Amino acid sequence: MRIDRKEAAARLLKEDDIIILCHRNPDGDTLGSGYSLHFALKQLGKRSRLLCHDSIPPKMNYLRGGETGEDFPPQFVVSVDIADEQLFGETLAPYRGKVDLAIDHHPSNSMFAKETLLDDKAAATCEIIYRLLLEMGAAISPQIADCLYTGITTDTGCFKFSNVTPDTHRIAASLIESGCRFQQINKLLFESKTMGMMELERRVLNTLEFHDQNRVALICVTLQMLRETGVSESELDGISGIPRKIEGVQVGVAIKERDQNEYKLSIRSSEVLDASKFCAQFGGGGHARAAGCTLYGTIEEVQQTVVAALTKALR
Amino acid sequence: MRIDRKEAAARLLKEDDIIILCHRNPDGDTLGSGYSLHFALKQLGKRSRLLCHDSIPPKMNYLRGGETGEDFPPQFVVSVDIADEQLFGETLAPYRGKVDLAIDHHPSNSMFAKETLLDDKAAATCEIIYRLLLEMGAAISPQIADCLYTGITTDTGCFKFSNVTPDTHRIAASLIESGCRFQQINKLLFESKTMGMMELERRVLNTLEFHDQNRVALICVTLQMLRETGVSESELDGISGIPRKIEGVQVGVAIKERDQNEYKLSIRSSEVLDASKFCAQFGGGGHARAAGCTLYGTIEEVQQTVVAALTKALR
Repeated sequence: MRIDRKEAAARLLKEDDIIILCHRNPDGDTLGSGYSLHFALKQLGKRSRLLCHDSIPPKMNYLRGGETGEDFPPQFVVSVDIADEQLFGETLAPYRGKVDLAIDHHPSNSMFAKETLLDDKAAATCEIIYRLLLEMGAAISPQIADCLYTGITTDTGCFKFSNVTPDTHRIAASLIESGCRFQQINKLLFESKTMGMMELERRVLNTLEFHDQNRVALICVTLQMLRETGVSESELDGISGIPRKIEGVQVGVAIKERDQNEYKLSIRSSEVLDASKFCAQFGGGGHARAAGCTLYGTIEEVQQTVVAALTKALR
Repeated sequence: MRIDRKEAAARLLKEDDIIILCHRNPDGDTLGSGYSLHFALKQLGKRSRLLCHDSIPPKMNYLRGGETGEDFPPQFVVSVDIADEQLFGETLAPYRGKVDLAIDHHPSNSMFAKETLLDDKAAATCEIIYRLLLEMGAAISPQIADCLYTGITTDTGCFKFSNVTPDTHRIAASLIESGCRFQQINKLLFESKTMGMMELERRVLNTLEFHDQNRVALICVTLQMLRETGVSESELDGISGIPRKIEGVQVGVAIKERDQNEYKLSIRSSEVLDASKFCAQFGGGGHARAAGCTLYGTIEEVQQTVVAALTKALR
């Protein structure tokens, strides 16, 4: 059942011993949402704990602020930025069917929770959490502001994507006033690169291929490349965006090897293609301009499959 | 003499047949400031014309909106985003000593104009122009909003740099409400790369050098590289930022060949160095985190000079 912000705030204010679930392969929005909610609940005198199937990307460790998490028997389960229970990952599988409140901005949310606070106009779930925390009477501390800003800047590509609204900027303005370290955060997330990452970029550029009259561009990232450069899969967001940056390219595809004959595809598209709908045919999903799916087979087969499907979709 | 916004607005409302000067090697802020002011003056029934020593970078042609510019004997001269008359370039040299009103945000403004509207807290001159246009009673049309947003997004590295304030975001919010095409603008300016640019990046990465315990990183861009990849000097902004992106690097230097034995240096620094002060010793200037200067000699001499000076400055 969908509920509004006031109801969600009332629910959280009433409950205690709260578990917060983030999605697997966590990004800035799910972690920023989770930690900002966690710190606000703590501020309000409650116990809460954040759970995620995967570990936090090292770059985003600042979000935790040294938190290790208290242990307690959970009384209430909240999921943040999770569109579907499939995204819980194995470790969190026991929580399937047991989420009391889902807070999310994905239009594709499968309404798996008892109650859902959904705003698909929000550029990031952190925008929803920001308003929710104000509703709950929580103070936006610099630490909470850091978390919320992180979700907003990562989900909007630092205010670049089409999901940005005037509200996105106004919330960012308030978070800067609350003391968020926007410059350090953006430098860390967007401007900083390890030598390994730079070497990976160079190798990945060598795999660049064009199709469908240069409207489709493809890159590949193999497990060997990751091993040899020391880059982890969670750091590949920027790499996935490379093909779409080339002038004239309408659809950029990053094919990332996950296991033998298993490839995760990241699709970034202009207005000519709904990437979420495109990925749905392969059991994937996401947003209209950025979505993902998993394909099986050799890398050549996967390339052929996606190029053929895209050529058809763009016709 | 410094004047305030109200006085500057009154002055512009009173005058007609206005020449607007932009600085040489024009960037998004000087052009965005110039064109937004031009379109506003036109809207208010005045004649105005924009002048610049160099031609507009092709990427930013959208700012002109097909304007070619009327010819008329100028009655009033305004400069936008110009810190010093040195930055006029040769073509505009006749206007030295003749600027009636300078609108600028550089702390280093040399007060060369009869009257100066200066706000060194503004992230971009376009922020000052935005408030000035409202003061003048001009409507922020989508076209004007595009120009103003362009200056703000380019001078803040798309809301990343330390010069961003809550006001920067609030103005961006208003400009989005006024219909600026922020997504297309950001994609064009930050996300889009020609094949030539990608090839140039690959070549430039091969020149990457580290000094002073990896706190200083240097890249070189030669005229030959530009010739062979078809990239123009005005498009090198992103390239200049590459060294500073590497983790641990405090000062990133891009050495760009301009002529035989003449090199333009772009310095980007963290808080450990005031780049503007550093460049001043070589007759250059700019902002604390990003500044530039010109050095003469062979490329090896220039490299040695800058590395020695930086090592000393960082001691």
